[in-house]
Amino acid sequence: MKLATYKDGSRDGQLVLVSRDLTSAHYATGIANQLQAVLDDWNFMAPQLQDLSDALNSGKARHAFAFDPQQCMAPLPRAGLWAGACAYRSHVALVHRPGEAPAPAGRDSAPLMYQGGSDGFLGACDAVLLASEAYGIDFEAGVAVICADVRLGATPAQALDGIRLLMLVNDVSLRHLMAAELARGLGLLQSKPATAFSPVTVTPDELGEAWDKGRLHLTLQSSWNGRKVGLCEAGPEMTFHFGQLMAHLCQTRHLRAGAIMGSGAVSNQDRSRGYSCIAEKRAIETLQDGQALTEFMKFGDTIRIEMKGRDGQSVFGAIEQEIAPLENAVMKRPNQAQAAA
Amino acid sequence: MKLATYKDGSRDGQLVLVSRDLTSAHYATGIANQLQAVLDDWNFMAPQLQDLSDALNSGKARHAFAFDPQQCMAPLPRAGLWAGACAYRSHVALVHRPGEAPAPAGRDSAPLMYQGGSDGFLGACDAVLLASEAYGIDFEAGVAVICADVRLGATPAQALDGIRLLMLVNDVSLRHLMAAELARGLGLLQSKPATAFSPVTVTPDELGEAWDKGRLHLTLQSSWNGRKVGLCEAGPEMTFHFGQLMAHLCQTRHLRAGAIMGSGAVSNQDRSRGYSCIAEKRAIETLQDGQALTEFMKFGDTIRIEMKGRDGQSVFGAIEQEIAPLENAVMKRPNQAQAAA
Repeated sequence: MKLATYKDGSRDGQLVLVSRDLTSAHYATGIANQLQAVLDDWNFMAPQLQDLSDALNSGKARHAFAFDPQQCMAPLPRAGLWAGACAYRSHVALVHRPGEAPAPAGRDSAPLMYQGGSDGFLGACDAVLLASEAYGIDFEAGVAVICADVRLGATPAQALDGIRLLMLVNDVSLRHLMAAELARGLGLLQSKPATAFSPVTVTPDELGEAWDKGRLHLTLQSSWNGRKVGLCEAGPEMTFHFGQLMAHLCQTRHLRAGAIMGSGAVSNQDRSRGYSCIAEKRAIETLQDGQALTEFMKFGDTIRIEMKGRDGQSVFGAIEQEIAPLENAVMKRPNQAQAAA
Repeated sequence: MKLATYKDGSRDGQLVLVSRDLTSAHYATGIANQLQAVLDDWNFMAPQLQDLSDALNSGKARHAFAFDPQQCMAPLPRAGLWAGACAYRSHVALVHRPGEAPAPAGRDSAPLMYQGGSDGFLGACDAVLLASEAYGIDFEAGVAVICADVRLGATPAQALDGIRLLMLVNDVSLRHLMAAELARGLGLLQSKPATAFSPVTVTPDELGEAWDKGRLHLTLQSSWNGRKVGLCEAGPEMTFHFGQLMAHLCQTRHLRAGAIMGSGAVSNQDRSRGYSCIAEKRAIETLQDGQALTEFMKFGDTIRIEMKGRDGQSVFGAIEQEIAPLENAVMKRPNQAQAAA
């Protein structure tokens, strides 16, 4: 089944089921109002949602309405954990080069991973609001999973069984703030503003054979200002699959239902595939020409990230974001605006 | 007012009000069941809780019962963000030394900070379950705040207004896993298992003059296996106050209600004050004798962390944890045990 969270003015939104072709939707009211509640009690709630999903897909749901990705919050608008990995070796090799950023130690033996803020994600069509273009604004297009409870010490195979849902992610990076944070060693804080997710999150069974042992074998499309810049294969070159990523984090703690794990920028060795983040393009230019010619994103720039199934249909809907100056920024809810402002 | 969250078998527990002297408690049922709901709508709910708190403190609350810290989950059992700082310069100077761990760059101009998992915190009396003593198990006793919404770009002074609640924290570190993670640059993941908080969280007004411009001027007591090892002043030597810590994180993103920020190990230049983490003791030994003599924690070891007010009474109740081997570990709820196990 496919799920999304509609904006309703609240922090957690309203859970909706979405049809396989993304044309229609139906509120999950009566089963669960929020996705976190479903994740907290999956075995009880998922079968009920599946029944409604079946009705929706067969055109028999009574109160279906046209699905609008613009109305979507992140499928899980806030979560207990968001960890972003660098699961593609060619991304690590290009972006973590001397002079660009320190090359992390032991990057081949264990996955590189950072923990980010999960207190307020962006919806698929929400603007990326930032104070300055000088941060070196970059998109990072990847795949993410939402987890069930996975116990401390779980093996990669056990962790795989704890994947409930998949979605796309734009984990924006502020490249000019990143090198200093990498040097400090304690992780990425200022260099990682709010993360956005695709309008729709889907259960693994929706992906058929494209989902195979923790890797998603489909093509991730990234279009920057309307120009296709990336058509990257997400499956074969994922050095660490999602079960391995989750097991890495589980070595000393439990993962709790709703934890989200991202793949990092999808990257292929075949450079004709393009790129899922600008830093890679700049690294290639630097290798070839001695300097990076492509500039980072400017205010007004747009990024569109999408993945099509083997039937040619969009699986998760598209992330479509604009980079916008902070002066337009307001926190969106009345009781948020009252806070320290 | 003082608040705690009682275990009830659910993931978020039941919110209770606790009397100032920590002897009695009262369910907040009818106002709010969970602390996150209060934080989400503070201006509406806090006055109602305050009324009940006043009744409890004057002995007029009808259904009060004896308060038992053993029944406590973390005041906020899961949150959207947990960031731990290293706000005390003497801690950074001792622990981040050559040979022990890399000295982070720029540590005096901006606060050192990492983001940790916030999907499942430990209650004040929950055991610290780990697979191996060889990790180099260390306690880290500090102060933490729970935030309101604080907007992107907030100044330190503005951020201070967004502090709703204070509590104590034991942010356990696995020292032998940490150096490698610091070298990788992306932050602390495996070296930071689940974090525990004091039984009770309190509004700033409960602290009177001890709470002053983002610093808590009281003494943090740490007792390891029953022996007092730290009597550290939390106020005067906090290099970056809580408003500065929060503003650091807010440079490129909003903080959302329920985000938690920790001070890191409280540390004083006067070494007769003792220590709030073993790594400091070992660093001092290494400086004095050429080698660290004090070993890290073993299974069966206990740590007690408490802070007394100027009236001599415990402000937050005590964190009292035992280090225990993982073979005893089970995830605590039926639907958690069903997950990938």
